[in-house]
Amino acid sequence: MSGRFHVSEHPLQEARVSGMVSDGGAGGLVTFVGRVRPHSDGRQVERLEYEAYPEMAEAAFGEIASEAQRRFRILDVAIHHRVGSLKPGEIAVVVAVAAAHRGDAFEACRFVIDRLKELAPIWKKEHYGGGAVWIGAF
Amino acid sequence: MSGRFHVSEHPLQEARVSGMVSDGGAGGLVTFVGRVRPHSDGRQVERLEYEAYPEMAEAAFGEIASEAQRRFRILDVAIHHRVGSLKPGEIAVVVAVAAAHRGDAFEACRFVIDRLKELAPIWKKEHYGGGAVWIGAF
Repeated sequence: MSGRFHVSEHPLQEARVSGMVSDGGAGGLVTFVGRVRPHSDGRQVERLEYEAYPEMAEAAFGEIASEAQRRFRILDVAIHHRVGSLKPGEIAVVVAVAAAHRGDAFEACRFVIDRLKELAPIWKKEHYGGGAVWIGAF
Repeated sequence: MSGRFHVSEHPLQEARVSGMVSDGGAGGLVTFVGRVRPHSDGRQVERLEYEAYPEMAEAAFGEIASEAQRRFRILDVAIHHRVGSLKPGEIAVVVAVAAAHRGDAFEACRFVIDRLKELAPIWKKEHYGGGAVWIGAF
């Protein structure tokens, strides 16, 4: 079984991630699910490849969660990210945040996914009909 | 089977509601889950009772979703609310919003749950060790 901060080669399930932060005291749980979109800059995406060093990425997830814990009144955070080759519609990332009050859960969840996109050591390559391009950070 | 805007006497499942808005074009899905908290104003909550006229409440959910569709660039919204007697930890409400981009999904989901708490014709009664009180709108 995986922990709260996890990089996986297997399909992600929203309910599994949100279930990790659903303890009894939480009045509000906000979950973000990011999927591979079928288009990027007007081009048809055939598949996306995500690459990461799992230990580094999981450590980064833990640091981002700690930063969220310091900034917001939240109870718990879980972050799972997929790696490997994904087709449009597949889930790339799930972030779940539990808090006593909903405002904190919304703000912290948004903060975590924005921070992940900025900082997480995960690389993304988009494959189109006509070729492929590394996007750098996801 | 129920629709996107639904009042239910049965336990709610986050994944069932978010699955209703998960079509292929959505890059971002934000789900809010509201649970009964074990405390309210320092008092131990034994259970909460929610009452609604389902048809009226479901129509109100649809109007709030339409308002969100007009204000934000979103693809779809689903709103399920439980009625009856709930214990602490049980899910009272689930709101799921899908959008091409995550910012819209976060803002619209927050808008919908805030609007629901203001407007939805659902009444809430808290039962404590020492008595019970109607809270008015949930």
